[in-house]
Amino acid sequence: MHAKTPTDDPFDIATQVTTIDGQTRGHTSDGYWAFVGPFGGVTAATLLRAVMQHPQREGDPLALTVNYCAPIAKGPFDIAVRLIKANRSSQHWSVELTQNGEVGAFATAVFALRRPTWSHQEKAMPQVTAFDAAKPYGRIAANWVGQYEFRFVDGGPQIGEEKDGTLASAHSKLWIRDAVPRKVDALSLASMSDAFFARVFHVRRELIPIGTVSMTVYFHADSDDLAAASTNYVLGTADASVFHKSYSDQTTELWSPGGKLLATSQQVTYFKA
Amino acid sequence: MHAKTPTDDPFDIATQVTTIDGQTRGHTSDGYWAFVGPFGGVTAATLLRAVMQHPQREGDPLALTVNYCAPIAKGPFDIAVRLIKANRSSQHWSVELTQNGEVGAFATAVFALRRPTWSHQEKAMPQVTAFDAAKPYGRIAANWVGQYEFRFVDGGPQIGEEKDGTLASAHSKLWIRDAVPRKVDALSLASMSDAFFARVFHVRRELIPIGTVSMTVYFHADSDDLAAASTNYVLGTADASVFHKSYSDQTTELWSPGGKLLATSQQVTYFKA
Repeated sequence: MHAKTPTDDPFDIATQVTTIDGQTRGHTSDGYWAFVGPFGGVTAATLLRAVMQHPQREGDPLALTVNYCAPIAKGPFDIAVRLIKANRSSQHWSVELTQNGEVGAFATAVFALRRPTWSHQEKAMPQVTAFDAAKPYGRIAANWVGQYEFRFVDGGPQIGEEKDGTLASAHSKLWIRDAVPRKVDALSLASMSDAFFARVFHVRRELIPIGTVSMTVYFHADSDDLAAASTNYVLGTADASVFHKSYSDQTTELWSPGGKLLATSQQVTYFKA
Repeated sequence: MHAKTPTDDPFDIATQVTTIDGQTRGHTSDGYWAFVGPFGGVTAATLLRAVMQHPQREGDPLALTVNYCAPIAKGPFDIAVRLIKANRSSQHWSVELTQNGEVGAFATAVFALRRPTWSHQEKAMPQVTAFDAAKPYGRIAANWVGQYEFRFVDGGPQIGEEKDGTLASAHSKLWIRDAVPRKVDALSLASMSDAFFARVFHVRRELIPIGTVSMTVYFHADSDDLAAASTNYVLGTADASVFHKSYSDQTTELWSPGGKLLATSQQVTYFKA
């Protein structure tokens, strides 16, 4: 059994992974429930945590792809972690979440020991209203939404605002923080990458049934970089390119308040419209 | 054994997958060799083809993530395809490429039966010089580069052009076509998503050792859409956000000449600098 630090933090509880007698398990969290299943970000973080806690794990997360293949029911689930290939400074992992033997989600992850090299941040952080000056938004009534504070600085949702059928932009910028403030780490970056409201809600100004099908997160900061950034909130940007035949894309960025790009993600989302 | 149509096309030969007595195999292609292994785009397309040819496959590729975990040696390789979960209109797959039992690359893929819905292309195709008016580029001497025609219209490589240590932009736009013209399909979109020169070559104006670690491709056009687009070349855009501690990202778009966004991708790339 791996040692765990007891915690009261709701995100750490929701993403808790325990290994007893070689069997790794997690449990859904009502506090992070979405409309028909767990919030996908917490599922991503739970699978990532299962790798992080594996005794053979070395280095920090570099890439994570999570495929959501079936609704996950409330209750416990099994997690199978497999080290597919270890190289000198990187590792390739696969992780499967099952309930009653049926796969609900699975992920692949790359971990790396990252050493200082030539470094160049091509992209600059957007200039926006500061966190403290931006107002929290709280009008979408899914449990998981209450676990975050969303402070839109551009492209806030206009749910229910009728505009003669015209479409709104898919682009948003907002500060994101855990409602119970928590130092940002790779686990919360994985979760926050899925914490943007579906782009189709923004564009159509309405809530419609949606679901993340697959999400990939790249981590541009290792644990040392995150310790140096030492923040409990990030600036998030989200956008989409196309909505077509039941699916749309979404691209996101998560920035430290100091201007470091911490993570980028893309996802493909199912929508019913 | 699955039926195959004999072909002279070099891309189809390079990505050929054969199943005999339940064992699926492929073979590297010297024509698509990169510096220390096969061109990653052809590996991606080969793994995707293995799913496409599987008797249980339904629908078209929606998402593909390929993890490159070890150098692949010249010669044959085994491919194991597994249907992880099938839903009413989508399927989740995993694919592993092994040589002598060691995993060289593995992928996950989502396939979907896509039906017409509300459709909205948020992003517009960049306005650029037409394919016929753009000049082919051919100054990087890896075998695989010769399999494509690259016609830069913006942000062409400046390899070896010394500019007092200043960095160039990571952004490029170029027309891409198979050197032996071939109708663009999901397989070639997967391959072309990895056919951009490493962003670090552009930014630093020099060739340095690099390797794709993980790539995710989203397909925004199904086979009907691709048949309607009916093109043998695409406009590609590529960019990067950050180069840090041995790794950089890359985001790409592939557009039909008629202005449809066919595929987007992101990848994380190792570099030695």
